[in-house]
Amino acid sequence: MEDKASRLRTMLGGTSTILIAGAHDGLSAKLGERHGFDAIWASGLGISAVQTVPDASILTMAELLSAAVIMNESSSLPVVADCDSGFGNVHNVVRMVQKYEGAGIAGVCIEDKVYPKLNSFMDAPQTLVPIRDFCAKIRAAKHAQHHRDFVVIARVEALIAGLGQAEAQRRASAYANAGADAVLIHSRRRDPSEIHTFVREWGGRVPLVVVPTQYPSMSAMEFHEIGVRAVIYANQALRASLRAVDRVFRDIRVSGSSLGIEDDVASVEEVFELQGVAAMDATEHLAFTMFEHRAS
Amino acid sequence: MEDKASRLRTMLGGTSTILIAGAHDGLSAKLGERHGFDAIWASGLGISAVQTVPDASILTMAELLSAAVIMNESSSLPVVADCDSGFGNVHNVVRMVQKYEGAGIAGVCIEDKVYPKLNSFMDAPQTLVPIRDFCAKIRAAKHAQHHRDFVVIARVEALIAGLGQAEAQRRASAYANAGADAVLIHSRRRDPSEIHTFVREWGGRVPLVVVPTQYPSMSAMEFHEIGVRAVIYANQALRASLRAVDRVFRDIRVSGSSLGIEDDVASVEEVFELQGVAAMDATEHLAFTMFEHRAS
Amino acid sequence: MEDKASRLRTMLGGTSTILIAGAHDGLSAKLGERHGFDAIWASGLGISAVQTVPDASILTMAELLSAAVIMNESSSLPVVADCDSGFGNVHNVVRMVQKYEGAGIAGVCIEDKVYPKLNSFMDAPQTLVPIRDFCAKIRAAKHAQHHRDFVVIARVEALIAGLGQAEAQRRASAYANAGADAVLIHSRRRDPSEIHTFVREWGGRVPLVVVPTQYPSMSAMEFHEIGVRAVIYANQALRASLRAVDRVFRDIRVSGSSLGIEDDVASVEEVFELQGVAAMDATEHLAFTMFEHRAS
Amino acid sequence: MEDKASRLRTMLGGTSTILIAGAHDGLSAKLGERHGFDAIWASGLGISAVQTVPDASILTMAELLSAAVIMNESSSLPVVADCDSGFGNVHNVVRMVQKYEGAGIAGVCIEDKVYPKLNSFMDAPQTLVPIRDFCAKIRAAKHAQHHRDFVVIARVEALIAGLGQAEAQRRASAYANAGADAVLIHSRRRDPSEIHTFVREWGGRVPLVVVPTQYPSMSAMEFHEIGVRAVIYANQALRASLRAVDRVFRDIRVSGSSLGIEDDVASVEEVFELQGVAAMDATEHLAFTMFEHRAS
Repeated sequence: MEDKASRLRTMLGGTSTILIAGAHDGLSAKLGERHGFDAIWASGLGISAVQTVPDASILTMAELLSAAVIMNESSSLPVVADCDSGFGNVHNVVRMVQKYEGAGIAGVCIEDKVYPKLNSFMDAPQTLVPIRDFCAKIRAAKHAQHHRDFVVIARVEALIAGLGQAEAQRRASAYANAGADAVLIHSRRRDPSEIHTFVREWGGRVPLVVVPTQYPSMSAMEFHEIGVRAVIYANQALRASLRAVDRVFRDIRVSGSSLGIEDDVASVEEVFELQGVAAMDATEHLAFTMFEHRAS
Repeated sequence: MEDKASRLRTMLGGTSTILIAGAHDGLSAKLGERHGFDAIWASGLGISAVQTVPDASILTMAELLSAAVIMNESSSLPVVADCDSGFGNVHNVVRMVQKYEGAGIAGVCIEDKVYPKLNSFMDAPQTLVPIRDFCAKIRAAKHAQHHRDFVVIARVEALIAGLGQAEAQRRASAYANAGADAVLIHSRRRDPSEIHTFVREWGGRVPLVVVPTQYPSMSAMEFHEIGVRAVIYANQALRASLRAVDRVFRDIRVSGSSLGIEDDVASVEEVFELQGVAAMDATEHLAFTMFEHRAS
Repeated sequence: MEDKASRLRTMLGGTSTILIAGAHDGLSAKLGERHGFDAIWASGLGISAVQTVPDASILTMAELLSAAVIMNESSSLPVVADCDSGFGNVHNVVRMVQKYEGAGIAGVCIEDKVYPKLNSFMDAPQTLVPIRDFCAKIRAAKHAQHHRDFVVIARVEALIAGLGQAEAQRRASAYANAGADAVLIHSRRRDPSEIHTFVREWGGRVPLVVVPTQYPSMSAMEFHEIGVRAVIYANQALRASLRAVDRVFRDIRVSGSSLGIEDDVASVEEVFELQGVAAMDATEHLAFTMFEHRAS
Repeated sequence: MEDKASRLRTMLGGTSTILIAGAHDGLSAKLGERHGFDAIWASGLGISAVQTVPDASILTMAELLSAAVIMNESSSLPVVADCDSGFGNVHNVVRMVQKYEGAGIAGVCIEDKVYPKLNSFMDAPQTLVPIRDFCAKIRAAKHAQHHRDFVVIARVEALIAGLGQAEAQRRASAYANAGADAVLIHSRRRDPSEIHTFVREWGGRVPLVVVPTQYPSMSAMEFHEIGVRAVIYANQALRASLRAVDRVFRDIRVSGSSLGIEDDVASVEEVFELQGVAAMDATEHLAFTMFEHRAS
């Protein structure tokens, strides 16, 4: 456990900008690792979407944790779990840290919205909790963790809620003072101007994290240049998957066979490879042959 | 519950050939429904793959059931759950029926392999259980179900195991006599010749089901013409998803942003739509406004 | 499923007073059935206690449901699930009904407290939600259920919160008008006077349910005489279990063996009997012998 | 994680005889700790019994693990998980170690029976796997663990199966040579003679563990004197609980109220105490008051 948390903490505290792959299942987590991402984001939107429920605190912590554990097992990268608004009050946050840390998750991210929360891109009012209440959650979380390096990221939704830069800075500073290990500043603008402004004015006490879903034009290198420490590509894998499945099912229904899509999908052998079928042979050899040979 | 089981039973007993969409999560199940498939196959390969473990009885019944329940909630179609070799002996099969039926799954499919099983396309020996033992499992399953219409499909792996047509027919007949509601005849040949032969010689006591993963050239219409009642497109959605996520993550890593893939992935709004976000407004209206109005 | 829900509904609508056994696991549920109780209460306090977490919305709906499902499988009685304050807002309530009903639970009970809730006997302020908000939850619940007979019980915490009889009546009536199938009127007084007053003044539109934990002097017959339809013995089994395990562990530690407590505990054979070991033989016989004999 | 595994390993390697409390839920685990036991046994019989299913590989690994995790969270003691016969073949054993170790369980115990297994006290034939196969499982388990101190106990069922002392010794030695950290020698005789003989002849390469369910007359001190390192009181808590709940429900049904059993059950306050309700106040204070004071 410590290994993954420590690796995440070290990366966040470095001078590089790390890239975090948003995953919705073990397969996407493993592919994120394979393509060289630095960590996995256990996306609340993604996990909700593959269960076809709204990203609105409909899935319980237990269900989100279960999905994060699968990602953690599927990848050797540290997993940062999107934990919505912390599932209730300070006691729910304490429980959350106990469960996620106990399951080997490297870090969690909680946002300063009310419970139940709504996805930040939904066309609906976004209500924040008072600063004092969210700081209490952060303190409770930091106090509940057993291992020094478990990471708690505070997500500021002030820009999402339309409360302006001053409120965003005030909240981010308060959360950092309360013990947050990093601040995720979120924006739904279609350009990175809000983020630029926030980052420029940020004093830099803890690292900053961004999720450029709505402003994809800004590259990781540009984020690095302005001092952002982590960039989360939160939902592109999910959206790719949705589009691909949609097309394949349509084609099968229209054409009456899967012949036409064989070239557009991975082979069964590629699936086996990602499942680790080859490792089964190694295990059999090790368990039955190699050690017996040694023993003789 | 009965509704879905009854619908599945009725469809299997009809003269049309139904198309079953292999799903690995709720999203793929919902897309299967949207594109007009008749039922959902809760694929053992698919569920294992999105957890990146081999399709070799590594996931427990509890984990497979949990995934099947999510598919069942995500779609109004009946779900047929791929239950491997039944998770052990007759007592495990009884437990399986109690759990799956109790959770609202319309039907299960068990295959005549040993436990733990191996995926039928794995390059490894495929060991079958004696006919007598598998018939006992079928009888135990049929006796355990509470609702008349819950469906138990017996999957014959004799062709997969290289035991020939005669053994395949012998097993299929025995399973039908033991109470199986349908027989799934599986083949790994790259052409449908084995299936053609089997279907031609089949006496027709119960409907036949096929999974043309390895022989995609044969269309649903051709299956219909030879009398196959159900065609399962078991893993195309999974393989499409794998390919798509692979490409998107590669592109993000190579280009340093998600800008280049925005046109290849579904929009956030499409995700919301599949999650049923719109239904939330209807629920609020219904709960707070409509009934209050009526009451006044 | 309908069978259990219908049986519960019929019992609640009758003229007898039914006795409901509060359970905390499958074993207590099965013993409740064995001793002639009419239904099972999947106690939030009990389920929390056997996981040693406070009864304060610490366990998620997923964990409470999982425990209720085990009780439902362990007993042929209908299960009424204690669902706290409904796990959030109307959308969480809709999800709750979908999940509990889908899992075969006969009915749920939600209380008019805020989320997260506190156990009613905790020495802490008890905060209720506005009547309008709770009525919306009831309407959402009733609209979400698929089967006519699924039961939704509204629990009035006005007496617990010290808001008086008038408020309790106002709330109970509003909840009945919103569609609740029964009202659970809760009291923490050490005598049944509050309950007597409430029941006397109740117009009787829907049946009343009580939980006489704090006023055990009042008997089921007396509840029947004043017209209460259901009495829940919510936590006696849990408390008996706690006391018994406490004593046995103490004795083993003090005496250095289990010899001294052998007469105070059930035999291994009694355990086997409750586990249904005997049924395994019947299943084997049925699966392997009986039907084969018939077939010949 | 390591802390608990290391503590367990240190205790097993010492010269004292440790007492292990068999638990079936979090409450019994916490009471085991409270009464000074050294570790918790996550009993397969106990976990099955509270779900009213036979101890015959009916519960899946996922369900047993879930129960063990609850015990682990409920107690600061290391948990040794009863893992039946390892849930299948070497690949299932590898999965088992990954899951249990990843969840923070200190050690596992696997027995040399076939899968599905039967409880050792059931009146039925007990079939063992060949020594070579079980040694492969032990090697696979030891190779799969990440942390040095995770404990794998091999349970020898040769005496249970009636195969005699020589076979028991042969198996125990082979398992120790294959890497088992301890050997659990099991007996169903009503006196400790078999155990005495086995222990006397044991060479002592790894520590021995016993489960004196059937021979309770032998005390922990006597086990210590003959060199047994750990004594598991595997099911007394379960059996105490069964007896207590049985009596309480009977009394309520006969007397028509819970008045008569109030003195035989724990108080609601005792329940709250075990649930950690007091810690909630401390958390609130810490999160809202103490740190704010410091900050000013």
